[in-house]
Amino acid sequence: MTDHMEWYKLGIDIGGTNVAMGIVDQDGTVYKKRSIPYPSCERSPERRMEIIAEEAKELEREFDRYLNGMGAAVPGSVDSRTGVITDAYNLGLHNADLYSVLRRYFPFMPISVMNDADAAAIAEHDHGALQDVENGAVLTLGTGLGGGLIINGRLFSGGLGNGCELGHSTLVHGGEKCTCGNEGCAEVYCSATALVRLGREAALSGKSPALKAALIGGLTARRVIELAREGDEGAREAFYRYADYLSSFAASLFNLLDLELIALGGGVSGAGDFLFDAVNARLDDKCFYKRHGKVAGAALGNDAGLIGCVGEANKNPYSFDYRGYFSR
Amino acid sequence: MTDHMEWYKLGIDIGGTNVAMGIVDQDGTVYKKRSIPYPSCERSPERRMEIIAEEAKELEREFDRYLNGMGAAVPGSVDSRTGVITDAYNLGLHNADLYSVLRRYFPFMPISVMNDADAAAIAEHDHGALQDVENGAVLTLGTGLGGGLIINGRLFSGGLGNGCELGHSTLVHGGEKCTCGNEGCAEVYCSATALVRLGREAALSGKSPALKAALIGGLTARRVIELAREGDEGAREAFYRYADYLSSFAASLFNLLDLELIALGGGVSGAGDFLFDAVNARLDDKCFYKRHGKVAGAALGNDAGLIGCVGEANKNPYSFDYRGYFSR
Repeated sequence: MTDHMEWYKLGIDIGGTNVAMGIVDQDGTVYKKRSIPYPSCERSPERRMEIIAEEAKELEREFDRYLNGMGAAVPGSVDSRTGVITDAYNLGLHNADLYSVLRRYFPFMPISVMNDADAAAIAEHDHGALQDVENGAVLTLGTGLGGGLIINGRLFSGGLGNGCELGHSTLVHGGEKCTCGNEGCAEVYCSATALVRLGREAALSGKSPALKAALIGGLTARRVIELAREGDEGAREAFYRYADYLSSFAASLFNLLDLELIALGGGVSGAGDFLFDAVNARLDDKCFYKRHGKVAGAALGNDAGLIGCVGEANKNPYSFDYRGYFSR
Repeated sequence: MTDHMEWYKLGIDIGGTNVAMGIVDQDGTVYKKRSIPYPSCERSPERRMEIIAEEAKELEREFDRYLNGMGAAVPGSVDSRTGVITDAYNLGLHNADLYSVLRRYFPFMPISVMNDADAAAIAEHDHGALQDVENGAVLTLGTGLGGGLIINGRLFSGGLGNGCELGHSTLVHGGEKCTCGNEGCAEVYCSATALVRLGREAALSGKSPALKAALIGGLTARRVIELAREGDEGAREAFYRYADYLSSFAASLFNLLDLELIALGGGVSGAGDFLFDAVNARLDDKCFYKRHGKVAGAALGNDAGLIGCVGEANKNPYSFDYRGYFSR
């Protein structure tokens, strides 16, 4: 870490299913972690954000030490000048002023609101797999494909204020339709959803009775990986096709930005070295330079968003609170 | 420009066919431009570099004012800590110490050696299309596809010191073979060579007698563009297929890095608004965010390399001369 001053901050990682929160210290250790379901049943976006803020307020009361900052990570785009959530489809929040809601409950604290993939990148850079890396990325292989970039030792979140959508760079021009409207995005081929789709294709080709049996209960990425590990032919085919797509995407980032390391997180990264080795083995053929970066596992798992969203505030507590520290 | 101090530096842009050199001033104006054929007939790499240095020495003698720096731009990878050309295939130079050769002829001058696409990006940022852009790119649509990135207002040339190979990010996973050994690189679909290939395919499909006739003398990108402008059906098909690939690549960079502007240079960019409009028209469908960047023409044409390779030295004349200003 940058210095040895002790501090405690409150981190909130808002997901479409669960909202995780906890107290984070200067070393990235998380205390008093708690989780509530995302209050999607509430119609009013304002009220949803208030429920989250109330829970955070309770956590603050429970914790007996001084908090000197807080942050929220959301799966969507955030206007970095105002802390307003522009679009978070999975949360049903659009132009939602999360900053102001949190400010009402926490009048005297720097507050940061950021994209969750950006938060994960900051967390991995501060305390995890990207600690000694000046230029790297985090890719989260989940339902979608999120990602954050560390450039010149700092989070890089884009030039126009939209944020970097790593999962929506093109991997297959004219390929399969993506939820974003474009075709052939990396997300369509490298997310956990993609691995399940490849597994389903292999199951339906009749190569693997075990994979076909797994279809009945609903195929998961984890099951495809398990079967591939066990040597099931169809599952192996699906898994290595997936690893091939992922290695093309990784090589693409290496060629484009000459990154040192890409840290893989999210569900599929649970495959560990079985996945990382398969991807790294393909990089020599796909990378432009012999001395290229490699992929490895992210270190902080599901806590990355929670830890990272208070990390940036730590680095520059005053300037980060966009609307002025004591302005309200 | 950064300041109004007057200065003159000597820029050398080394290409596989021609070596262009000239005196560049603080405003990016080029004086006493001259060009010699690249001395590829010389077997010795050392001698080739000496011939270039001798020509530069003569230019210095001809110019009656004080030169306070020089730079060389090469189509290949340069070790940014030493000024050694790692690999420049079109020049037949590998592990070639251009810095030392130039230093022998110019003992008392800061010397920079850099990739030509990086130089073009610096030039466009200092004096051209990227002047007011904090985050942008230059793409050179020539025989290959070169490119340079401006990130946070400065050249970004990668984390491991290899440099950024924008043309070798994947556009079509499993697509056509690229000269780099990988498949489906952006270069294979967005270079001038790609437009000629698409034109040839259209010609052979029999749709366009004019395009077929042009095959005889050797089809060029310029001819495909001319015929497309004139409304020739086959040429239009080739041209718009090309624009579609290029828009996918541009959208990919916009989604990945949220760039403000991509400046297009190189032969194909001579198509002007006919090309830029075709690409920009497709971006709304392909970009993740509504408020995305756009493409436009580069401003400095063939002089970009020459102008840019002395630009970085200008910004930090001492630190940039890796081996010490007076060390030899």
